[in-house]
Amino acid sequence: MVEFSLPRGMRDIDVDEMEKRLWLESKIESHIRLYGFKRVEPTYIEHLETLEAKSGSAILDEIYHFKDKAGRDLGLRFDLTVGIARMVANNFDYPEPIKLYAISPMWRYDEPQAGRYRCFWQWDAESFGSNEAFADAEMVALSLGVMQAVGLNDVTVKISHRMLLEGIIRSLGAKSDEQVTSVFRALDKANKVTEGELRGLIKTAGFEEDQVNTLLRVTEKKGSFDEVKEITQSVADEWTKNPLKDLEVLWDELGSLGLRNRCSVDMSIVRGLGYYDGIVFEGFESAGTNLSLFGGGRYNTLTSIYGKRALPATGVAGGVERLMLALERKGVFSAMRKPNRVFVATAGDEVRSKALSISVQLRQHGVATEYPLKKWSLRRQLEYADAAGFTHVLVVGKREAEAGRYLLKELKSGVQTESTLTEVLDRLRPP
Amino acid sequence: MVEFSLPRGMRDIDVDEMEKRLWLESKIESHIRLYGFKRVEPTYIEHLETLEAKSGSAILDEIYHFKDKAGRDLGLRFDLTVGIARMVANNFDYPEPIKLYAISPMWRYDEPQAGRYRCFWQWDAESFGSNEAFADAEMVALSLGVMQAVGLNDVTVKISHRMLLEGIIRSLGAKSDEQVTSVFRALDKANKVTEGELRGLIKTAGFEEDQVNTLLRVTEKKGSFDEVKEITQSVADEWTKNPLKDLEVLWDELGSLGLRNRCSVDMSIVRGLGYYDGIVFEGFESAGTNLSLFGGGRYNTLTSIYGKRALPATGVAGGVERLMLALERKGVFSAMRKPNRVFVATAGDEVRSKALSISVQLRQHGVATEYPLKKWSLRRQLEYADAAGFTHVLVVGKREAEAGRYLLKELKSGVQTESTLTEVLDRLRPP
Repeated sequence: MVEFSLPRGMRDIDVDEMEKRLWLESKIESHIRLYGFKRVEPTYIEHLETLEAKSGSAILDEIYHFKDKAGRDLGLRFDLTVGIARMVANNFDYPEPIKLYAISPMWRYDEPQAGRYRCFWQWDAESFGSNEAFADAEMVALSLGVMQAVGLNDVTVKISHRMLLEGIIRSLGAKSDEQVTSVFRALDKANKVTEGELRGLIKTAGFEEDQVNTLLRVTEKKGSFDEVKEITQSVADEWTKNPLKDLEVLWDELGSLGLRNRCSVDMSIVRGLGYYDGIVFEGFESAGTNLSLFGGGRYNTLTSIYGKRALPATGVAGGVERLMLALERKGVFSAMRKPNRVFVATAGDEVRSKALSISVQLRQHGVATEYPLKKWSLRRQLEYADAAGFTHVLVVGKREAEAGRYLLKELKSGVQTESTLTEVLDRLRPP
Repeated sequence: MVEFSLPRGMRDIDVDEMEKRLWLESKIESHIRLYGFKRVEPTYIEHLETLEAKSGSAILDEIYHFKDKAGRDLGLRFDLTVGIARMVANNFDYPEPIKLYAISPMWRYDEPQAGRYRCFWQWDAESFGSNEAFADAEMVALSLGVMQAVGLNDVTVKISHRMLLEGIIRSLGAKSDEQVTSVFRALDKANKVTEGELRGLIKTAGFEEDQVNTLLRVTEKKGSFDEVKEITQSVADEWTKNPLKDLEVLWDELGSLGLRNRCSVDMSIVRGLGYYDGIVFEGFESAGTNLSLFGGGRYNTLTSIYGKRALPATGVAGGVERLMLALERKGVFSAMRKPNRVFVATAGDEVRSKALSISVQLRQHGVATEYPLKKWSLRRQLEYADAAGFTHVLVVGKREAEAGRYLLKELKSGVQTESTLTEVLDRLRPP
């Protein structure tokens, strides 16, 4: 059977969505660059081992992988962090800190859902070389800045620390890494299960009722650094010293950057079971949906897996499609500025050459300009200009060409003016 | 064995190359948009049948293809034309002509060579709905315009017509499509073989010595439309009528667009054995290398393969990597404007907060700004600013913070000035 449909979970990006994406990507990119990050594009296809090294062989079920014609096991990238970390780990030319970003697609073999595809885009920024919470604070600031740059002012960031959480779990009596992991897994599901189920999961990991109570009292705590410091120190003084120092530095930096009112320390943030080992954070649309817009954190061991250069690191990534949904709901795209687009209509074959040379001049002045590509009557040309969303029609007839004055019609208002070409160019060219 | 190297033929795009690509892509994109083309992004992964439908099953040897977890045969796209044609063939919402472009990567399982990878980028523009040579002329104009926009003024376009060439081959006595194809294949290799070998290939296809002479006399002809018209009519009057009419319209349009001096009709241009069925063209760097920079032509049957909407079409594509090579040789990238990048250095911990709030203001004014992410001495900070290519350093010390006057050093000239923050912002912000 011949299939010209799209593979399951795949899609084309059509004209309208692409215009929005171009606008969005340009806003994101300009903002990230203000922090000195530089763009890279890691390979789309990696050795399968490279992908497994970050996430274990369980990742096989979730990604596209295949053998090439030489029998090599390859896979399509499932995030941008792997490639960027691998690049940095093998490159000694960059002076530290190394701040890189990418905005690009990746693939996962998930079950497709409404608005969720097997190919999706992320903006991603990674900072290598600093173990200070300075760098984590910059990631939070960058993320909030990106949201503001695209028109989302109502975003809050919840911040936690993996080692602080781990310290509390251990202080409650966890004996093994597996026990810590089980509690992480349970807490990571907290939003998706009832409190009863959550308690059940933690008990199954080997904790008593009062330990569960203590743990939940801490993880339910949200607020300023000082508030969270108080409660965590009361539970686990010994384990919390270094992570609390990190969070304190972060909180100071956020103060200096004027961002404290949009941030809270929130011990319920776990960020999965992955490779994070320090400060973690997640950004949410404050009003209504509580949609997660970005997330990130510190991962100090990943580069040492991939190359000779072991570097502390912190990063953030956000989904482009998810961001577009939020912007769509807020009507941000409807405010996108649309530049002039001119259709140069020809009244008669003998003026075609004149119409083309006028079009060349309009384009030289930066105005998007088209002329008829079919042998159309003037009436058909004007219908087309209407249907195809042009902002202006310039009519070139024999009389106009001779007089050097042309009829310019603004399609939205219907206003017509007769102008010289110089006047037309002055009026239509971008500022 | 764990492999953290890149798969054969794959690569990462590093900071320096990416900066050039961003500049280049922005120039290409801005220019294509002046012609009213709109960007799309076809799916990266297609059903294998979709890819085979354009190029036959021989394409299997040249592309990445695999089965997904549900046993479907999928393949990575090897060009942008397939996806764009499939999109258009199944979408009835666009008013014709439909003018779309993409700038994006694709994959082929070629043998990697110096500067040639298994993943590469093309800029690609396609125009659907007009069977007039108006549309082909626009493609030539667009392509030359793109070259000029990126700094290549010395590019010439060679133009031919597949049906004109086919007409001549048939008028010389070709009895079958296979014979026509054999001659196409021979002519397409003309640059890679000796004249003797070329003659041999044509003879093998079933032609006599004097027929070969006539054929080569025509295909070696290059020049204005009138010159080529004369020689082709003298050989094959009956077959040449319609194709010559196309070329005449094209030549007229190129005249109106002021591009004739950069174009020639050149019957040696074949553009492979693919799906082209009308005007074809190829653009070359005129001086020295004769590097092919873009190529395209008319393909009136492809959309009818892919969907319900059969539309005449013409398109062009050019390799981004190849273009970068040409620009690198001409030194175009060295003229790329580099925006200001400021490092805000802190003299002492007590001014860090002040330095951060100054950084926030610089960024709000559109200036890329960084501050130390490590606990560095002032001296170490200044060394870093030098090594990392900043244009300016702003030094914030206790005295400066109190006086509200800061030391701004331009790193290239070494010139230092003491200014208020307002003066600094005015001086550094982009125009």
